[in-house]
Amino acid sequence: MLIPLILLGILSLQTFSQEFLTAPPPGLRTDGGIWPLPQQIQYLNHSRSIGTRRSRPIQIILDENVNDCDILKFTKKTYLRKWLLPFEDEASTNDSTTLFLTVSVKDGCPKSNDFPQQGMDEKYSLSVPKEGNATLEAKEVWGALRGLETFSQLVFLEDETYYIQSANIHDFPRFSVRGILIDTSRHYLPAQTIRRQIDLMAQNKMNVLHWHIVDIESFPYISKRFPNLSEKGAFTPRHVYDSKTVQNIIHYARLRGIRVMIEIDTPGHTGSWKGQPGFLADCSSPTGEKIPSNILDPTKKENYKFLAEFFTEILEVFPEKFLHLGGDEVEYWTEACWRQNPEIRRFMKLHGFQDNVTALEDYYFSKLQQLLAPIASERRQIFWQEVFDVNVPEPNSIIHIWKGSTKTERAESLAKVTAAGHQAILSSCWYLNYIHYGDDWKSGGINGDYYYCDPQDFNGTDAQKALVLGGIATMWGEMVDSTNIEARLWPRASAVAERLWSNPLATKNADEAWPRLHEHRCRMVARGFRAQPINGPSFCHNEWLLP
Amino acid sequence: MLIPLILLGILSLQTFSQEFLTAPPPGLRTDGGIWPLPQQIQYLNHSRSIGTRRSRPIQIILDENVNDCDILKFTKKTYLRKWLLPFEDEASTNDSTTLFLTVSVKDGCPKSNDFPQQGMDEKYSLSVPKEGNATLEAKEVWGALRGLETFSQLVFLEDETYYIQSANIHDFPRFSVRGILIDTSRHYLPAQTIRRQIDLMAQNKMNVLHWHIVDIESFPYISKRFPNLSEKGAFTPRHVYDSKTVQNIIHYARLRGIRVMIEIDTPGHTGSWKGQPGFLADCSSPTGEKIPSNILDPTKKENYKFLAEFFTEILEVFPEKFLHLGGDEVEYWTEACWRQNPEIRRFMKLHGFQDNVTALEDYYFSKLQQLLAPIASERRQIFWQEVFDVNVPEPNSIIHIWKGSTKTERAESLAKVTAAGHQAILSSCWYLNYIHYGDDWKSGGINGDYYYCDPQDFNGTDAQKALVLGGIATMWGEMVDSTNIEARLWPRASAVAERLWSNPLATKNADEAWPRLHEHRCRMVARGFRAQPINGPSFCHNEWLLP
Repeated sequence: MLIPLILLGILSLQTFSQEFLTAPPPGLRTDGGIWPLPQQIQYLNHSRSIGTRRSRPIQIILDENVNDCDILKFTKKTYLRKWLLPFEDEASTNDSTTLFLTVSVKDGCPKSNDFPQQGMDEKYSLSVPKEGNATLEAKEVWGALRGLETFSQLVFLEDETYYIQSANIHDFPRFSVRGILIDTSRHYLPAQTIRRQIDLMAQNKMNVLHWHIVDIESFPYISKRFPNLSEKGAFTPRHVYDSKTVQNIIHYARLRGIRVMIEIDTPGHTGSWKGQPGFLADCSSPTGEKIPSNILDPTKKENYKFLAEFFTEILEVFPEKFLHLGGDEVEYWTEACWRQNPEIRRFMKLHGFQDNVTALEDYYFSKLQQLLAPIASERRQIFWQEVFDVNVPEPNSIIHIWKGSTKTERAESLAKVTAAGHQAILSSCWYLNYIHYGDDWKSGGINGDYYYCDPQDFNGTDAQKALVLGGIATMWGEMVDSTNIEARLWPRASAVAERLWSNPLATKNADEAWPRLHEHRCRMVARGFRAQPINGPSFCHNEWLLP
Repeated sequence: MLIPLILLGILSLQTFSQEFLTAPPPGLRTDGGIWPLPQQIQYLNHSRSIGTRRSRPIQIILDENVNDCDILKFTKKTYLRKWLLPFEDEASTNDSTTLFLTVSVKDGCPKSNDFPQQGMDEKYSLSVPKEGNATLEAKEVWGALRGLETFSQLVFLEDETYYIQSANIHDFPRFSVRGILIDTSRHYLPAQTIRRQIDLMAQNKMNVLHWHIVDIESFPYISKRFPNLSEKGAFTPRHVYDSKTVQNIIHYARLRGIRVMIEIDTPGHTGSWKGQPGFLADCSSPTGEKIPSNILDPTKKENYKFLAEFFTEILEVFPEKFLHLGGDEVEYWTEACWRQNPEIRRFMKLHGFQDNVTALEDYYFSKLQQLLAPIASERRQIFWQEVFDVNVPEPNSIIHIWKGSTKTERAESLAKVTAAGHQAILSSCWYLNYIHYGDDWKSGGINGDYYYCDPQDFNGTDAQKALVLGGIATMWGEMVDSTNIEARLWPRASAVAERLWSNPLATKNADEAWPRLHEHRCRMVARGFRAQPINGPSFCHNEWLLP
């Protein structure tokens, strides 16, 4: 490697090269390491051979009450035929080394219209003894899914033989919300790309796909009631998600224990809602020229009628009980538009807001919450943090923290939001769309030490800390589409996944975690996913190839 | 997009969002734009319909003397069946709108053992009149390849109909060396991945694949004479290039008019040459502990005998007449190793070098050049710039400039090297392995304004400027493998390609170039390559999908 000296300071190249490990040294290498690290794991210091690809290394037996469960049948097939034993011969039969895993789920199978939701139980116990059968027990099917992923990670291949680590595991997530944000407005993401990220989330035990579906640049969602929105707002008629595609993604996610949380971001960031006449405020610059509008007009009654109908549809389409209502970055727009629009100014004066655009924003949000009350009573509302900063959102709403350029600012926001009794979700330190050269998963400043950022690292009472639901790693779409999103997300988002799942006391040191993460990345690669190298020179037994 | 304020300074998000274009506005959009920009192009302000996928839009007729030319037959097939008209119906027939392109090559077809070399003639003339047949004329087949790529770029699809822009083009490259460096030591790149980059290079009219094949971390090259080198030095027996694979890559590149320039980097960066006993110097730290060696022992006669045999093989395998001999970053190693090794110290004293390790380095390079003289008389030697800085390399050798953290330093190096009469190749400003958030192809400092860096931008005579052969964009391998190299290279390397091919006076403005680059990226995507978005929100008619 030749590196311009400015980047090295006084370091020699030699030093630089040695900072990188060429893959974990043999003593540090993991075989059957688990990512994210389980809460409790007792390795039995024993790995047993379970056969070759010509024998049948593993048999999974579903307990009677889940024997016919769509989710488990699908997952069993995925692991056995696709990921865990991709070389298994169809004609293979059990032999003396075949490992039997029995899976029992206390609560049985969810109904086909039951989706994973906040409160889903992801706890499981897995036992792989030195001899005899392995067992996986969970209260709910979601826990069984997490346990099956763990089970699959205990298996490793060496010289054409499958081995499994013997271990006793009791595991559950530290946080209930462990998410990835995708943004399908700045660049369109084909459904195939979204499905692949869902697969990868499951392999990292993440459970919330935050779908920032529309924004300024495009409106790819095809609304049944308001088809004009995508007709006028999508990049092209090809860059859309029709009803069938959306349903397919939601069901695809359900089979993997993943929630699909839609975000409908208003009143700003609405530039692409051109298909609804009168919805956007007329905007002009301070010098009077008309400029493209990016904010709705909160003064018009018809707009609330439209929103009520639009949200009715959204609530029909998305079963997820968290509803993200956006609300970020309104202040800039008010300067640019609301303040310049004579009719809106008149409206503000009429309502006694005077020059206070924040009061108008408050007005908008209280109207929005009023219209949602009858139709969304079973949903929890999430807002980006500005809505908390400038308004008093409904007490039961959840605040999504994205600002904070320093650890201190982040901690202050968390303290403030939870002190007010709101639950919180953190994203500030996990803006994975920002890229940095080097091993940014563990070092590199506010947006480059994803592994170390802890959502409970703020001054507050235990009760406040308990209000933190988790975190969401964001992959804003300005610079990513189907060509690069997968490699840019993984395994950088895996660092976030471990922080949100595992015991912080057991995952204090990124350098100790690296051998496990290396194995995990290579496992994702072996399963056909483009998880990129993030820690310097290394190799995987199977490198990624186009199929 | 939500952006922590630290990154924005005092900018509002709004301003930030508007910095990005959501794809070129209609007036700026190009249809049939060409990248890199031809030297002379006269558009006839006319695009003609040449049929649908069910008719046969294009017929390519090869002139009599090249009718049977392997290179042109292959290229014709690639464009017609794979890239240009991928939807063409096999059963389609000519009709009244079919465009005929006749291709004539004055010098006929190269022999099957003729490879593109320095001096290859890439000039071509292409005429697509408003009516009647199109013609492509070139002196050598390499020019015809460039012309066919240009021809393919004049074609565009709209509403299921193919159109072509009418134009008269006379084109040739500004620089003779327009390259990409790949590094297969820090991460292994499967042959498939290398072949895909060669395809993309051809689509960007680049012509030199600089293959940095071995380095500290691994030795993937299987030497016939010294199989121990890869047996001991490769990551695993799967992470290697056997003779057949190397030949396949060289021939794959030849069919696309691309030279494969091997680099064998000595005396430093040789840590993986463990398979040749005694080759590496014994190294110890100043406090006496033995440390891994990364530098050869230049005092042993046997090492020169070995190098002579090894290079004999390399010269048999690689027909390319430029031979890159590395030579970078020796100074650090000498401190760490040569100076600490008692026998090497004794040798230096004996030869009157005293404490001067540079003198020992000189000694090594003069011995290397002596041993190469009889076997490599037809090859031109290339060295990284340190060899020029500390030694007096053979006057005919080419200096590869990679240092220079500022434009001034870069210019000084270019001036110094060319003042000494050496030809030069520049890489300093094109370290594409370094990544930055945002549109780094056009802005972002020394390693982030690839489009603007000009290899002739230094104080020197015309004769000095004429010594600049071109540039090589480097993709050092620490952070890339087959999962991410393609998206990370393209279209960022396309910016370099235009700088090295086109007239600088016609390509002064990246913002003006952007619509053409956008079309070019989408063309690469439509052909099945993972060229990533680099300029903010946008879309391509066909987004990238896994096959």
